Amino acid sequence: VTIDERLAELGIVLPATTAPVANYVSTRRSGNLLYVSGHVSRRAGAVVSGRVGDDIDTKTAYELARLAALDILGTVHAALGSLDDVTLIKITGFVNSAPGFTEQPAVINGASDLFVQLLGAERGAHARSAIGVAQLPLGAAVEVEAILEVGSGTATNR
Amino acid sequence: VTIDERLAELGIVLPATTAPVANYVSTRRSGNLLYVSGHVSRRAGAVVSGRVGDDIDTKTAYELARLAALDILGTVHAALGSLDDVTLIKITGFVNSAPGFTEQPAVINGASDLFVQLLGAERGAHARSAIGVAQLPLGAAVEVEAILEVGSGTATNR
Amino acid sequence: VTIDERLAELGIVLPATTAPVANYVSTRRSGNLLYVSGHVSRRAGAVVSGRVGDDIDTKTAYELARLAALDILGTVHAALGSLDDVTLIKITGFVNSAPGFTEQPAVINGASDLFVQLLGAERGAHARSAIGVAQLPLGAAVEVEAILEVGSGTATNR
Repeated sequence: VTIDERLAELGIVLPATTAPVANYVSTRRSGNLLYVSGHVSRRAGAVVSGRVGDDIDTKTAYELARLAALDILGTVHAALGSLDDVTLIKITGFVNSAPGFTEQPAVINGASDLFVQLLGAERGAHARSAIGVAQLPLGAAVEVEAILEVGSGTATNR
Repeated sequence: VTIDERLAELGIVLPATTAPVANYVSTRRSGNLLYVSGHVSRRAGAVVSGRVGDDIDTKTAYELARLAALDILGTVHAALGSLDDVTLIKITGFVNSAPGFTEQPAVINGASDLFVQLLGAERGAHARSAIGVAQLPLGAAVEVEAILEVGSGTATNR
Repeated sequence: VTIDERLAELGIVLPATTAPVANYVSTRRSGNLLYVSGHVSRRAGAVVSGRVGDDIDTKTAYELARLAALDILGTVHAALGSLDDVTLIKITGFVNSAPGFTEQPAVINGASDLFVQLLGAERGAHARSAIGVAQLPLGAAVEVEAILEVGSGTATNR
């Protein structure tokens, strides 16, 4: 089963992605490592802004992290033409957090769950940090960045 | 002298580590690089929460960063079975910071000092960023993530 | 044209850099990847502190991000003796942000623009994340860290 077939089975359409309008790029590769720029929470291309724990609740933020992960996969698919050769290595999830909000892991689970659902337990496994930040670009509620391995898939958990 | 012997000399027992209860893993390796997930400040397994510069002072936070680093080494030891083949490359230290608190480097020194003490000046040397954040998972005072090199130890400082 | 020649043409003198006064190093290399520690905003060596969106405006912060990028290149030049063999891979830009400030990308453009101006469109291209944080070391307005590739320059954007 290819990832494209799995996406079709799940009824998921990868979002169209747009190149940054600044002097950086969406993906940059050194050797087998593909660095993916921070992707902020969007719905249908529009940034979803707000402070989690204040005007956005944990369940909604989980969904926004899932959408950011989907955007990352859309970006990688556009760059490589397929998701069949990628293995996830590391993600960092930044949550625009109200002062007392401490459920960043529950939010970033939205990204982790999506990655494992689509790439599978082996290729989707990843190290992770979840962080609560004061603010994000355009007031976004969530931002996720990723490092993937392209190619032979020699990544392991140890 | 093995790292286990050095730990014994210093009277340090690496903490037991637990696997994340979510869709991510503690360590993920691509080639020689081992990415270690963010580890929050804990004592005897329990998260130590608080805002540094407010209810936690710099000296206590230094100690918490040291404990997070020790947890990281416990995780890596559990994954690889030994610390004799690892070289530190980079750490990022996130400090749950009161608005006016600017001593993040002094806090993260607790991690840096521990790594160099245990791994030695050559294998323990590392690049670093220290950041003050609005909030951390479970309200933790400190979170540290790391990238290590496994194997031949060809890392250098230039 | 070497990077040193381009610097001379542009009338840019790379700042002198100083080694960290703690147990970490400015640059750490594993294989072809060179990790550069977080560099805070400085003018003539002195940290420029302040909160962007409050006592520092976006335009000034853009300039501070540019200076941090220049400091990074000064550090890399000092480590390697030249900038002719480096290719940029990834930067993370942390902006000390007032609660309502959401123009982190416009600030970090100061670093991205400098890197592309000096290294060129191919070697200067990079993935990026821009984050708004509660506080930075010494109260700095901006902090930038980087990952570069040293050597054959096989980095690509996909």
